[in-house]
Amino acid sequence: MMRLLVFLACFLSSVCVHAQHPLAFATREDYAGVRSQLGRSLLLNGSFTEIKKQVDPWLGRDIDVPTPKDPAGGYTHEQHKSNYTLLFNSGLLFNLTGDSRYADLVRRVLLKYAQLNPGLGNHPQATSSSPGRIFWQALNDANWLVYMGMAYDAVYNAIPPADRQTIEDGAFRPEVEFMTRDLKSWFDLIHNHGVWACAGVGIVGIATNNADYLDMALYGTDKKGTSGFLAQLNGLFSPDGYYTEGPYYVRYAILPFYVFANALSHARPALNIFGYRGQILRKALEAGLQQTNTDGRFLPINDALKEKDYTSNEIVTAIDIAWAAYGPNEGLLSVARRQNRVTLSKGGAAIAAALDAKKAPTSYPYRSVEYTDGAKGEEGGVSILRAGKGSDLTTVVFKYASHGLSHGHYDQLGFSLFDKGAEIFTDYGSVRFIGIEQKFGGRYLPENKSYAAQTIAHNTLVVDEKSQFDGREEEAEKYHGEKLFSGLGTGNVQAVSARDDHAYPDVRLQRSLYLVVLPAGRKMVIDLFRAQSQTVHQYDQAFPYSGQLINTSFRYQPSTSTQKPVGAKNGYQYLWKEAEARVGDTVAQVSFLNGRSFYTVSTLVSDSAQVFLARTGANDPNFNLRREPSVIIRRRGVSPTILNVIELHGSFDPIGELATSSYPAVSGMRLLVDNADVTVAEITVGKDVLLIAQRNVATEASAPQEALVNGKMVSWKGGFGVWVNGKVR
Amino acid sequence: MMRLLVFLACFLSSVCVHAQHPLAFATREDYAGVRSQLGRSLLLNGSFTEIKKQVDPWLGRDIDVPTPKDPAGGYTHEQHKSNYTLLFNSGLLFNLTGDSRYADLVRRVLLKYAQLNPGLGNHPQATSSSPGRIFWQALNDANWLVYMGMAYDAVYNAIPPADRQTIEDGAFRPEVEFMTRDLKSWFDLIHNHGVWACAGVGIVGIATNNADYLDMALYGTDKKGTSGFLAQLNGLFSPDGYYTEGPYYVRYAILPFYVFANALSHARPALNIFGYRGQILRKALEAGLQQTNTDGRFLPINDALKEKDYTSNEIVTAIDIAWAAYGPNEGLLSVARRQNRVTLSKGGAAIAAALDAKKAPTSYPYRSVEYTDGAKGEEGGVSILRAGKGSDLTTVVFKYASHGLSHGHYDQLGFSLFDKGAEIFTDYGSVRFIGIEQKFGGRYLPENKSYAAQTIAHNTLVVDEKSQFDGREEEAEKYHGEKLFSGLGTGNVQAVSARDDHAYPDVRLQRSLYLVVLPAGRKMVIDLFRAQSQTVHQYDQAFPYSGQLINTSFRYQPSTSTQKPVGAKNGYQYLWKEAEARVGDTVAQVSFLNGRSFYTVSTLVSDSAQVFLARTGANDPNFNLRREPSVIIRRRGVSPTILNVIELHGSFDPIGELATSSYPAVSGMRLLVDNADVTVAEITVGKDVLLIAQRNVATEASAPQEALVNGKMVSWKGGFGVWVNGKVR
Repeated sequence: MMRLLVFLACFLSSVCVHAQHPLAFATREDYAGVRSQLGRSLLLNGSFTEIKKQVDPWLGRDIDVPTPKDPAGGYTHEQHKSNYTLLFNSGLLFNLTGDSRYADLVRRVLLKYAQLNPGLGNHPQATSSSPGRIFWQALNDANWLVYMGMAYDAVYNAIPPADRQTIEDGAFRPEVEFMTRDLKSWFDLIHNHGVWACAGVGIVGIATNNADYLDMALYGTDKKGTSGFLAQLNGLFSPDGYYTEGPYYVRYAILPFYVFANALSHARPALNIFGYRGQILRKALEAGLQQTNTDGRFLPINDALKEKDYTSNEIVTAIDIAWAAYGPNEGLLSVARRQNRVTLSKGGAAIAAALDAKKAPTSYPYRSVEYTDGAKGEEGGVSILRAGKGSDLTTVVFKYASHGLSHGHYDQLGFSLFDKGAEIFTDYGSVRFIGIEQKFGGRYLPENKSYAAQTIAHNTLVVDEKSQFDGREEEAEKYHGEKLFSGLGTGNVQAVSARDDHAYPDVRLQRSLYLVVLPAGRKMVIDLFRAQSQTVHQYDQAFPYSGQLINTSFRYQPSTSTQKPVGAKNGYQYLWKEAEARVGDTVAQVSFLNGRSFYTVSTLVSDSAQVFLARTGANDPNFNLRREPSVIIRRRGVSPTILNVIELHGSFDPIGELATSSYPAVSGMRLLVDNADVTVAEITVGKDVLLIAQRNVATEASAPQEALVNGKMVSWKGGFGVWVNGKVR
Repeated sequence: MMRLLVFLACFLSSVCVHAQHPLAFATREDYAGVRSQLGRSLLLNGSFTEIKKQVDPWLGRDIDVPTPKDPAGGYTHEQHKSNYTLLFNSGLLFNLTGDSRYADLVRRVLLKYAQLNPGLGNHPQATSSSPGRIFWQALNDANWLVYMGMAYDAVYNAIPPADRQTIEDGAFRPEVEFMTRDLKSWFDLIHNHGVWACAGVGIVGIATNNADYLDMALYGTDKKGTSGFLAQLNGLFSPDGYYTEGPYYVRYAILPFYVFANALSHARPALNIFGYRGQILRKALEAGLQQTNTDGRFLPINDALKEKDYTSNEIVTAIDIAWAAYGPNEGLLSVARRQNRVTLSKGGAAIAAALDAKKAPTSYPYRSVEYTDGAKGEEGGVSILRAGKGSDLTTVVFKYASHGLSHGHYDQLGFSLFDKGAEIFTDYGSVRFIGIEQKFGGRYLPENKSYAAQTIAHNTLVVDEKSQFDGREEEAEKYHGEKLFSGLGTGNVQAVSARDDHAYPDVRLQRSLYLVVLPAGRKMVIDLFRAQSQTVHQYDQAFPYSGQLINTSFRYQPSTSTQKPVGAKNGYQYLWKEAEARVGDTVAQVSFLNGRSFYTVSTLVSDSAQVFLARTGANDPNFNLRREPSVIIRRRGVSPTILNVIELHGSFDPIGELATSSYPAVSGMRLLVDNADVTVAEITVGKDVLLIAQRNVATEASAPQEALVNGKMVSWKGGFGVWVNGKVR
């Protein structure tokens, strides 16, 4: 009888999307499947109990829906956040237990919002260009729509029609109209905020049987398809799944993508959303996971909180949905094992069963990968070179992608290195204490733009102490790096080379990174950085690192009793100058210790250079920055070719009181050839002589190359060749 | 026949100690027991295989015994170190496998030393007052004697008598005579170096059947018993097992104590060495383990490398011997589980069997403990207050012991705090990179004395910017703190109070620490520091901490573009002044984040004070110091009573993007009574009012006390009383 009524109501309504509920997070059949497995799986049961523990104390109790007032971290912010989580979970429990008290909780709270929302103007703490109403920024309001939409859908059948009307008109409509009218241009943006907004409006559309909402979500407010969810799927990922804002933000954006796709797969199955664009959502998730370190943390490309790892709620949800949509996958299983919780969904139940049935791999199957950037894959990309296994994995990250929208950093041709689980050559990440009210309400701090995003905070070249693109986002967004060649895989030599012609007005940059494993097993990264100009410039290369300085091959002037910043602007003002050196005609070396391993940077100084040992913390009145060291090597010249070698060497055992191979092995470095076409470098490492030859222009991988080196012809194929003691490595 | 020959040789020798070998590390019967269990235990087998893997490649190969040349970390140093380990292990394997190649390896190398040692003078890198010959310091030579003595003893029966003579005269005698004649006064010192020296000479005595050596080891070079091993057992431990140099050094000293005691238990069973002084060696090991953090690291009292934990080789050996000597023990088993290896000994085999048979506890049974210092237990002590369980354990460390000999720090009444596995209010530890040649050969660095040992590097009072005892060891060693009262246990209030009358010429210090768990579960430490003088002084209290500054309750002047040291000497010169504030008539609060928890120091400023936010790193030309923050609160006055509250509060979840209770709850602090007899303090924490009353003179625990507080009589028993909202807590 109920069903008939629903059917009739739907039939009579012109805005009916699909008569059946629940649909948004899971269907009736999905819930039946979860229910049937609840008793059988410890992990699934654990997640169920966990949620029950959170929700049950609130059954029958009054739940506060306060007038919005506080910024992130403050009471009203956290209360509204916890409300949408509570209601979503309560909706789940209603479907899994049949206990109407869970449905009633959702109803009661949504009725309160139906009272609150129609009267809301912009949030009093709103500072962003996309202000929120319930929260300080619209993004959080979109989160609210996603979860409240799913909560409402989950208990739809248990809410009397009159209350439904009240809720739909009072709680949801003002928020949807706010997003699609007041914030129309924000809603229509191809950007992670836009994805949340579309997912929120779309899910509310599904929950409230409102095809208008759903169509705006799918095709943009004008329903033409140039914006909206499908346009976002087209525009925010490269063909191989790279998310233009970087892995930290795909972690965030993946949730609305997956949650809305999941809802669409029930509500609009004909869309075949999971097959869309060659399974772009599968590729996006896999690319996001490949862009994590062995501890599960996301590689800090662009704005990134370094504490974030793949155990976050978003990735739990995405993995569970992906498992149901795309089928079992060993990599996902290894991640699920570390997450140690599942959602109460079809995929969650299936993963729990798989984890019960078999041993999951202990590590995600990391490999060397590269991703193109840009909707068409024509806007540069990111290469990740990897060598070693398990806890001994070494990861080189190289960025020559597009800027990364508003969260982008000015770090074209930037490099970072992870080894033995730790970040060794670092990217600062972002300056933010998310959720901590005392730190600007948990928002991005001013030093995020003024330091963390600046070029000097990264390992790349800073020309004339200015950041790339003069630190202007609108300029940076016009361009991207371009790959010249690469050779990835599992061999003893992996390489990638890319160029950038726009970061500085009259300097063209080209950088090549080689990850080499020597015959005795020692790993090193050879870094060939070429700058081409017509005029004299100052070229600074920073090596921000994590560790304790052990030794330098040169004398320096330490700042013992007074300390001043390295520079005055563009991020330099945040760096204390701890020491300064002038070096000439040498291989300058700096060794440091990280955990139980040594690392040495060797740089060839053919004429002269300055070296600064620096540390963040200057001009930081609010103590927003961590104190982290950096080595900055400064050269003056027209078109320097900079040759660096980074050695990963030795071990320190403070328990056994033993250090082995604490000295670098590189003893000589020479540039043998360096012209517009070819560069050849020679590096002496202990008794081995390493020779690297590369093409400086784009080259077919199979094209035969040759160069006259010390009167002898050396030949190779494609972009590069590497020899050890005359033998191809 | 062989046995008969040995017996006869022994009979004819006037210096025969005991005819049978092996004896030093294990007896023939012990080895038989280990052998019989080898096949049965995975852990034991693992340790056996590990050793075999290290030794086997050297069987039949030439082993270098180089002329001593290099400091610690250098080639000859490491080679001689690895030689004694190799020989010791080879001796073990000979007894476990019967393979004569292992015995031959020991013989061959010892014959090389028999060539080398007689010609050695002081080591060319010797800088200490106790120079070594094989190594830069005599301590390492003593290590050599311990292991080489055990190795020789292990293969004694397999070495032809002529070679024995050569080895005993050439390899051992020069070293023994060097120690007992040239370094006589060092050998006779009651100090950890002396323990190693006695163990080395004594074990060589047992191995070479030389009663003279053994008697010197036991009773000192003059054999009168005022020095030597037994005097060390009497003098280096307090009656309850506290080792006067602190836990880091007991970790080191425990090895020769246990190894020599183990040898004595075989060679001189009548001594009943393990029962000596009420089982002092059992107490010493247990005290050492109680003085670790939950991660197994030793509490950094005095010179301490913070990386050292109880998985170090010394503790593995000691635990295995203790298990055999004193019987099974759950605490030792939990440690053995984390060590995950055993020695190939009777105790090692028994622990391996125990670990195979049952689940070991996951954590050492940490509890609140206090230890007296001094041979008679009359030289102050150390109190450790603990609350919470497992990973939520909070540990307060309070030192009022004697100075700690040459490794002592000037930190009478010093405090540190560990929470949730991390060190929160820190002790710098020692400035040393052990084993790393580039860092002064791995030795203590100059900043160890000039910074780490100074008072300002610790949380206690610095008067007039001078270290306690003016930083003079000979002065500091004359005195110790004195406990006034304490109340430990598992309750909601634990307390300890101690005084010091000598650290500063005209200032008497008294400090009380209360670890309080409030009704809602919030933990806090209340710190009442009283200074009594006749004249005006400057009183600085430092709070070195680990974490990121989150907020202060007061405005400060940050050092944005220039940074200068906080002071000029006594350790102050190493602290950059990051910010400075003047505060008056307030409760000044500083909050910081460590990991996922917040901590706040609140200090009552009744008149005025200066606050410095400081960080180590100034005047550190060689980058020997880690960069660590400190809050320094400076007061001027005659006899201030300083009231601080440290709150442990809230949680930060960067994955869930949520911070809870990030603000301190302390809103008011008052000193209601403060005189020579009694201090009463009131602290308002949220809605709770906490009252603390204490006696400022030594008091019987049961003696009734009372004080007039705001016109009302408050009464308690013994040293202190604590009330929450008027109810005894």
